[in-house]
Amino acid sequence: MELAQSIIAAIQNAIDVNRAVLHEPSFYGNESKYVQECIDSTFVSSVGKFVDRFEKELADYTGAKYAIAVVNGTAALHIALLMAGVESGDEVLVPSLSFVATANAVHYCGAKPHFVDNEERTLGIDPLALRNYLQDSTEQRSGMCINIETGCAIRALIPVHIFGHPCDLEGLLTVAKDYNLVLIEDAAESLGSFFNGKHTGTFGLLGTLSFNGNKTITTGGGGAILTDDQELANRAKHLTTTAKTPHRWDYVHDEVGYNYRMPNLNAALGCAQLEQLPEFLSSKRRLFNRYCESLRDVEYVHLFSEPEYCRSNYWLQALLLDDSVASQRDPILEETNSAGLMTRPAWTLLHKLTPFQDCPHAPLPIAESLEQRIINLPSSAGLV
Amino acid sequence: MELAQSIIAAIQNAIDVNRAVLHEPSFYGNESKYVQECIDSTFVSSVGKFVDRFEKELADYTGAKYAIAVVNGTAALHIALLMAGVESGDEVLVPSLSFVATANAVHYCGAKPHFVDNEERTLGIDPLALRNYLQDSTEQRSGMCINIETGCAIRALIPVHIFGHPCDLEGLLTVAKDYNLVLIEDAAESLGSFFNGKHTGTFGLLGTLSFNGNKTITTGGGGAILTDDQELANRAKHLTTTAKTPHRWDYVHDEVGYNYRMPNLNAALGCAQLEQLPEFLSSKRRLFNRYCESLRDVEYVHLFSEPEYCRSNYWLQALLLDDSVASQRDPILEETNSAGLMTRPAWTLLHKLTPFQDCPHAPLPIAESLEQRIINLPSSAGLV
Repeated sequence: MELAQSIIAAIQNAIDVNRAVLHEPSFYGNESKYVQECIDSTFVSSVGKFVDRFEKELADYTGAKYAIAVVNGTAALHIALLMAGVESGDEVLVPSLSFVATANAVHYCGAKPHFVDNEERTLGIDPLALRNYLQDSTEQRSGMCINIETGCAIRALIPVHIFGHPCDLEGLLTVAKDYNLVLIEDAAESLGSFFNGKHTGTFGLLGTLSFNGNKTITTGGGGAILTDDQELANRAKHLTTTAKTPHRWDYVHDEVGYNYRMPNLNAALGCAQLEQLPEFLSSKRRLFNRYCESLRDVEYVHLFSEPEYCRSNYWLQALLLDDSVASQRDPILEETNSAGLMTRPAWTLLHKLTPFQDCPHAPLPIAESLEQRIINLPSSAGLV
Repeated sequence: MELAQSIIAAIQNAIDVNRAVLHEPSFYGNESKYVQECIDSTFVSSVGKFVDRFEKELADYTGAKYAIAVVNGTAALHIALLMAGVESGDEVLVPSLSFVATANAVHYCGAKPHFVDNEERTLGIDPLALRNYLQDSTEQRSGMCINIETGCAIRALIPVHIFGHPCDLEGLLTVAKDYNLVLIEDAAESLGSFFNGKHTGTFGLLGTLSFNGNKTITTGGGGAILTDDQELANRAKHLTTTAKTPHRWDYVHDEVGYNYRMPNLNAALGCAQLEQLPEFLSSKRRLFNRYCESLRDVEYVHLFSEPEYCRSNYWLQALLLDDSVASQRDPILEETNSAGLMTRPAWTLLHKLTPFQDCPHAPLPIAESLEQRIINLPSSAGLV
């Protein structure tokens, strides 16, 4: 297949090697040193100086007033939703094109994800389509957005910064305000990405990050909650540490809590990774430029580039096929993977997955189209 | 206060130092080596050789056919309950004297903990009291145990091996069988504890372990599910890895899953810790013997020792006050902690906590009594 072969050649040309995984971490900084310090201190679990330091440095870097480190991005989103008041029977607006964790976290609260469309310009939720949809399908009752068809309250809106690209936060914040929705940013993929110079995850009431092994920086498994609200920050810490009330020895828990704190061992790795974040971001941008260059002459495809007013972390490089060659997505995936270049499609749209098939959704023409046309390319910072 | 001073003297005599925390881990084995190997491999996240190895070695050690490593003991219990078929509206029998995680995990399934009494002989659920209680308060309908008062199905029974001491599994298994209850062992505290020569956590349909920083061995944060059932083992792995169906590149999730897998980084620490488990167990037993010796002449108190037919890991050493001096518990806690010897009472009984106050419970005279009389002593393996 000619197109697949051209793409393979362009990838190999950009990364200067013949084989590559989709994303792997780089550990060339203080990882070993800090992890050893952590072991020496015996504080490897949920209390320790690396957790405190990681949280402080995350807050400093993102500009959020508070960062609370947790076991993973899914846990971060779960707690953020609980704190936003999402309850059993509610609905939460989620893009259909996203990783399953976004919808799972909503389900954990007993609520239903309500899927809305993505836009091609940012890959995130389309604010204009969202506004039109809410205009037709919801009504306001006592300051609450109600889904006319189901009668359920739509409590929150979760923009996701897909592959690290900031979505249109300005547009989405206005819609959230106009429709009385709490905005929670799923910034799992976008550490190091900025919208109008402000870090993603710091626009809504709460934002969440992920440090899974495939992310821009990793703690093995890990995530964080970002917020500017001190009360929410305290509550996040409380809820993620089994809701134990402070006492010299008594074990009293004043609500149902979670065992979601990030262990100090993982935070030690994270502190070392965070030191290298600027370098990783430069590498990823360099890789983007190289892919751009080498794919310039390949017809029917283009590399997705950061939206206007944004600076993206380019977490996962995304190739977009023209409509005319969308049917070749699977053969291209087949040939690139067989050639030792790990590529993958976008996630299956969430509203199509068995567990979410019965959830409400808006018309999703753009998400449907993007699903057929996206191919992620090898994206590790270590490639260039 | 004379009793408190006698206890302080006895503790200091046993551990040969003046100050001690309640429990801290020891890292004198291959911890640094394995963690470094893990970092060098770049596989620090949810896939890697240490996770596989830790699971295999846990299975070998406990005699369970399968072990599935997860982020913590709470997550292990949550998944075990889901797999046991616990659903929204069900009730699950839980000892009132236990750590809050046992009840929280039940709540995560939308079910209610139904608290039953502990016994002084094992500190765990009293099988005889349980049988009498179920006899009076439940009826069988289509092979299901129904709480007559609430009309809800009582789906499962969770014995907890308190402070590492095996509860009366023989008695509890018989009750579970007679009343159609799924038995799930919360063996969070009892790695290295055996009942009749068989490891705790391997008696029920499923068992769970914890490797939190305060446990006999630690992975920073971590837990495991034990089972002999291959289908359940596969399903546990599936549910804890976002329920993603295997495919070369497609992202399809066939049910609501969880991000609960133990990271390889934490498993690396666990592999090193597991190598030292026999040594830790010897130390803890030696510490028990020393405490016994030094407390022999202190009136009105005795050290809790492993129940008949059991070999306990002696995770947390427990002093029991006689009824006549139960009122001195708090002054003793005050004086020991002030002297730099970290002691603590048992957990506040779960049925008294705000989030569980409205849950059903049996008469709890023994749990009430134990709560007033237990004081845990410094218990680290490194103390002797």
